[in-house]
Formats: sequence, structure tokens, C-alpha cells
Amino acid sequence: MEHKTISKAVISRLPRYYRYLGELLEDGVERISSNDLSLRMKVTASQIRQDLNNFGGFGQQGYGYNVKYLYTEIAKILGIDRQHNVIIIGAGNLGQAIANYANFEKRGFIIRGMFDVNPQLIGQVVRGVKIMNLNELEGFLKEHDVQIAALTIPKTEAPAVADRLVKAGIKAIWNFAHTDLVVPEDVVVENVHLSESLMRLSYRVCSMQDEEEKEKAKKES
Amino acid sequence: MEHKTISKAVISRLPRYYRYLGELLEDGVERISSNDLSLRMKVTASQIRQDLNNFGGFGQQGYGYNVKYLYTEIAKILGIDRQHNVIIIGAGNLGQAIANYANFEKRGFIIRGMFDVNPQLIGQVVRGVKIMNLNELEGFLKEHDVQIAALTIPKTEAPAVADRLVKAGIKAIWNFAHTDLVVPEDVVVENVHLSESLMRLSYRVCSMQDEEEKEKAKKES
Repeated sequence: MEHKTISKAVISRLPRYYRYLGELLEDGVERISSNDLSLRMKVTASQIRQDLNNFGGFGQQGYGYNVKYLYTEIAKILGIDRQHNVIIIGAGNLGQAIANYANFEKRGFIIRGMFDVNPQLIGQVVRGVKIMNLNELEGFLKEHDVQIAALTIPKTEAPAVADRLVKAGIKAIWNFAHTDLVVPEDVVVENVHLSESLMRLSYRVCSMQDEEEKEKAKKES
Repeated sequence: MEHKTISKAVISRLPRYYRYLGELLEDGVERISSNDLSLRMKVTASQIRQDLNNFGGFGQQGYGYNVKYLYTEIAKILGIDRQHNVIIIGAGNLGQAIANYANFEKRGFIIRGMFDVNPQLIGQVVRGVKIMNLNELEGFLKEHDVQIAALTIPKTEAPAVADRLVKAGIKAIWNFAHTDLVVPEDVVVENVHLSESLMRLSYRVCSMQDEEEKEKAKKES
């Protein structure tokens, strides 16, 4: 599968296509036109045709897209047709939320282990996954083929743990710590910065409030 | 504060500036040049100057930015100088992770209540916040001035609860449910779709693996 030629913007939209196609499949829909998909996804039909044309035209004029085929092909492109072994560093609420999310497993992300430094958590089992002592990390990674590490620990601890993960051969970090990790070029980091998301929401709420006040002031004057 | 003239792209970068400036403040740094900030943030200095020029030139030639001033101004723009009352619908691991995150409070996001339908959770207290029965939602919102609702419930339940929130006057939804909510124009939704983030990570890992294999094949041929 050639990845290089597909733009970042298109790639970033694929998971959403994948989700909608999955829902269509669940509803027993076999074919869908770009127009119908456009109505569902609230994206223009031409955007959809452009995006999906990147993969060599799954659609046929006047006939629509084959939902299952498209779903399968996008899964291949995203690499979720393969199995990814995942560990979670940080077994607090957020780490446990991830471990408990069955949907990840359905998409091939299998949680193989959880690690923490809190003696009260070590030894507990979350959805069949044992919480281990963080000092067992390197030993575990030697014995298990793990591709992805989720980092759900405070930002003060994250850089040191990221270094250990990189040294132990981890090539992908799903980072929930509120800091930017410095890693070698061949390691990918996907950030989930919840504070930043909340600030964007705050900005949008405040903008809307300000506009409403302006409208009100205009009417009153 | 004029919001309209600032582009979405700039706004989406502000939370990150805010984070770095906060760290500088903690380190006791009073002034910083765009070049030094550029090195820290791994963004070009010209990008930084362009972004920050949007706010009427906080920087002075050869003198750098006043960190505290910039930090305060960005907070105002993002609306995090005000207080936002927040409720959380869904008191499972993810909801509790959010309730336990003290940093949100520091930025003016105060958790006022949590709601769930699970009798085992109702009545529990998380960091001083009581988990209430979801059927108390409307009554609670009548008596409390709440701006933001975080939705940490399964996607099947999310649309109905979002409708109830909108009817009860909520103007901002922080949506963790893996579905796109349909809301009126004056309601803002900020999505955190963890599955999509994980798929983007998967794509990037697989692309890198594929490239490495190609390189290897090239060398071997």
C-alpha cells in the first residue's frame, strides 16, 4: 500500500469516514452515493469524491460506493486491519478508561499490559489486564512485541518514561500528558491534549457570548 | 475583545502558546524573544511573530515578549480569565478522570456536578463533586448557572442526552462520545474522538514500517 501520496489532511479525515461507513454497515446499507454520504457526514459531496478518489476510485458513476469494500480499504490504509499490541503507562482513571474501551480491541488495538508506580494499583486487574510495577517495564517489553504505548501520567513524569520507552524500542506513543515529548525521528507521537481542547471550547463559547452581547447592544441603541 | 478577525488556525495554536508561556512563568522567565520561543516550541520564529502580531504586537523589536503580559492576554482571548461552570454526564473512568484533573480548575473550569444512570455510582463523591442521578439533570440546571457539559457516555446514549442539555439551555458540549452530535447553531460542540486519534497513530506507525521495509528491500536488491 502506497502511503506517501496521500495528503495529511485526507488521512486525518479517514477515521471519520471509517466510522460512518461502519455505521452504514451495521444498518445493512450496501451502497451509498457521495450525495447521501454527504448529507450524513455534513461534508460536501465533492469533498467526499475528492477524498475517496485518492484511493483509486472506489465509486462508480451513478452506482455509488460499495460500503463494505470502502470500509475494508480504509481500514487497510489506516493499518487497522493489522493487530497492534498496546501497553498503558499510568493506570489511573484515564488509563483505566482506555483499557475499558472495548471498541479499541474491535479495531485491532489489544491492551497487553498496564503499568503504574502506585502500590495500591499494582496487582489489580482491569478487563483482564494486570497492572504491573513500572520497574517491570523493560523486562516486559523484551518479552512482548508491543507497538504502541499510551502515556496517561502527569506531565512531570512523561519525558523520563518516554525516554525509557524509546530505549526499549517502542515506535509509537499515544501521549495524554500535557507536554510535548522529544523523541527520535523514527518514533511517532500522537498527542491528546485535553486542556487545549477545553480551551478551544472556552474560546468558542466566549466568542458566541460576545457576539450575542454585541447584537443586543446594537438592538438597544 | 474582538474575536472575529483572528483565523481559526491561529486560535487553535493559542492553547499551546499559553502552555509554553505558563511554563516560562513557572521558571521565572520575564521576557523571551521569538527566536528563543521558537527553539522551545519547535515552530519557526516567523510563525510565532505572525501569530502573536494578531493581538496587536505584544513584542518589541530587540526586546522580546513580556511573558506575563502575553500569558494574560492569551488567557483573555481564550476566555479562561473567566470562570466556567462545568457538569460531567457519565461518571465512569473517563468522567472521573476529568473530574480529578486539578489543572482544569486552575484554568477556571469548575466541575459543579456529575451525573450517571448507574445506581452503583450515584451518591459517590469524586473530588468533592457528588454523582447525581441523570434524571435530576434538568432540575440541577435550573438552579445552577452551567456553561459547559462534558459528555463521557456511550455513543448510543449521547444524542438523546445532548438534546436534553440543549433544551435545558447548555451552550457548549465537550463531546467524548464517538458520534457527531446534531445541535442548533448557537450551541458549540468540541469533539474528542479518541478512536480517531488512535487510528491516526496507527496510520503513522504503519507508514513508517512500510517505508522501513521498502528501504530494506532497496538495500537488499
